[in-house]
Amino acid sequence: MINYKEKLHLIRAFVFDFDGVMTDGSVWMYADRETVRCGNIKDGFAIQYAVKKGYIVAVISGATSLSINNRMESLGVTQIYTGCANKMSTYRKFLETNHLAPEQVVCMGDDLPDYDIMRASGVAACPADAAVEIKEISDYISLYPGGKGCVRDIIEQTLRLHGQWFHPDALTW
Amino acid sequence: MINYKEKLHLIRAFVFDFDGVMTDGSVWMYADRETVRCGNIKDGFAIQYAVKKGYIVAVISGATSLSINNRMESLGVTQIYTGCANKMSTYRKFLETNHLAPEQVVCMGDDLPDYDIMRASGVAACPADAAVEIKEISDYISLYPGGKGCVRDIIEQTLRLHGQWFHPDALTW
Amino acid sequence: MINYKEKLHLIRAFVFDFDGVMTDGSVWMYADRETVRCGNIKDGFAIQYAVKKGYIVAVISGATSLSINNRMESLGVTQIYTGCANKMSTYRKFLETNHLAPEQVVCMGDDLPDYDIMRASGVAACPADAAVEIKEISDYISLYPGGKGCVRDIIEQTLRLHGQWFHPDALTW
Amino acid sequence: MINYKEKLHLIRAFVFDFDGVMTDGSVWMYADRETVRCGNIKDGFAIQYAVKKGYIVAVISGATSLSINNRMESLGVTQIYTGCANKMSTYRKFLETNHLAPEQVVCMGDDLPDYDIMRASGVAACPADAAVEIKEISDYISLYPGGKGCVRDIIEQTLRLHGQWFHPDALTW
Repeated sequence: MINYKEKLHLIRAFVFDFDGVMTDGSVWMYADRETVRCGNIKDGFAIQYAVKKGYIVAVISGATSLSINNRMESLGVTQIYTGCANKMSTYRKFLETNHLAPEQVVCMGDDLPDYDIMRASGVAACPADAAVEIKEISDYISLYPGGKGCVRDIIEQTLRLHGQWFHPDALTW
Repeated sequence: MINYKEKLHLIRAFVFDFDGVMTDGSVWMYADRETVRCGNIKDGFAIQYAVKKGYIVAVISGATSLSINNRMESLGVTQIYTGCANKMSTYRKFLETNHLAPEQVVCMGDDLPDYDIMRASGVAACPADAAVEIKEISDYISLYPGGKGCVRDIIEQTLRLHGQWFHPDALTW
Repeated sequence: MINYKEKLHLIRAFVFDFDGVMTDGSVWMYADRETVRCGNIKDGFAIQYAVKKGYIVAVISGATSLSINNRMESLGVTQIYTGCANKMSTYRKFLETNHLAPEQVVCMGDDLPDYDIMRASGVAACPADAAVEIKEISDYISLYPGGKGCVRDIIEQTLRLHGQWFHPDALTW
Repeated sequence: MINYKEKLHLIRAFVFDFDGVMTDGSVWMYADRETVRCGNIKDGFAIQYAVKKGYIVAVISGATSLSINNRMESLGVTQIYTGCANKMSTYRKFLETNHLAPEQVVCMGDDLPDYDIMRASGVAACPADAAVEIKEISDYISLYPGGKGCVRDIIEQTLRLHGQWFHPDALTW
């Protein structure tokens, strides 16, 4: 197996599942049926930064909630696919629309609905607390669990490798 | 004592307490007296999957909150008993309605109000952080605490044993 | 120093701080200035049970929030003192109204505003994550942090000692 | 390098980032786009106490949310700068308005947007879970992560050093 770091050289896009990746899997349920999610600020910083640097960032989620859209839009993400019963067809559409080869995509998921699209991506990554089948097919298992920095981790590693991450001596960024 | 894994062969139904099992025991209190709970997405996936595979899934909770009904309904659970001061009478009605013998039921609870219905079930299971009396009568103590995967754990173990869990090579599921 | 267990024999009342004792110290802030707290269900069970068994349970909090009142009222607690800038005068009024001697009271607090009333109680108890000065004057430091079972711990210990806690063989309780 | 404790002697003001310092980085997203943060009560006590003792306390945050303003105002903080794309210009304005030299300021941040203002402060401090670049330039890394007491930690250390922290024998405070 090729080291995941070598594969990261080709990456131009990030595809994330939402629940369990951007969050620790918690969903708050209100009386009016609104569902509320909770994002992580360090993950958010990395997403904003990747978008600014020209990387493509997308979310493919099985869930439907304005909480997901609001969070992602506030970070500059425009490709937000929610309510995906079949993630594979969405993923194929995503590749086509963005003229991407699978080798150019990191896909981070945490559970069985992400299985197929992770296998179809150049680099499969997952949080520390992903389902066992997901860990088995991952090129990289983050030390951080969902919602606690796994998104930041994979973005930061990729951008550092590309020489695109923040450099202390460059005061403007 | 028979190994709980052997007993799991007969299981056709899951009965769960809500607070402390589906959640870590946290209840948010709003000014208008609405109470809000927080579910776990990996537990939710397993519940949806079990329902789809034809297992009976029920919740028997002492609490009353639309947050409980909304969460369970969104996962396809239709047998939701809330506000149960005496869980035993509800449990008996549940068995009768569904033509189930106690041996066909896993019951997972975390605290004293679950004591009787757990003793009356084929398999008594509990989260890692259950009350000491509940641990004492449990056939299986999950390594996961309430709200952090104990529901997924018991469902996944049962369905794997039955050959019903997701199989990586079967791409449609 | 007398072992705290011996002192527990005399206890008839429990006085709790709210934030950091009933909760892990988290306070959610909404745009309309509503503040929301999150209670713990196992603590809640013990409080309800103590009230049912005839113990006096009170909350003395420096904060003011309907979230506190709603939570405590739902558990059967009627003596709820919020917005207490000076907890000592409230505590004296509490003793007087309930015809209690200090020796009959356990007081559990986690931070400096609780210092005086803890010193004035028969048993001073605190969560595992209390401030250092509070730990220094505590007869008992729970192994559980605030919001994670410290309230249940002190109530359960007291009621067990009094032979009042739930007994597995007594099916009605 | 001078020990940070020696530098703390000169401190008259505290500057805090909000997300990841006052919180664990969690941001709840509602359907109406309201964002909700969660503060820590022990941090809050220390902030209120520092304000009462005459220290200057300010927040400089990149985010904009009434949740931040409401939390800080409830603790007596009046210098609340939100939506700061460039924290350095805000920080310079803060020094000028308050007639402060950099040596008189502790600045606690957790991520790259705090980099410059931390380097421009007398004491740079960060939570245990700060970004690696932030840890590198910090005079003091708290043992507590964001939202779990790091703010209390740095305030308490400073006020103890100045002989201004609560003293058990002084019953009025």
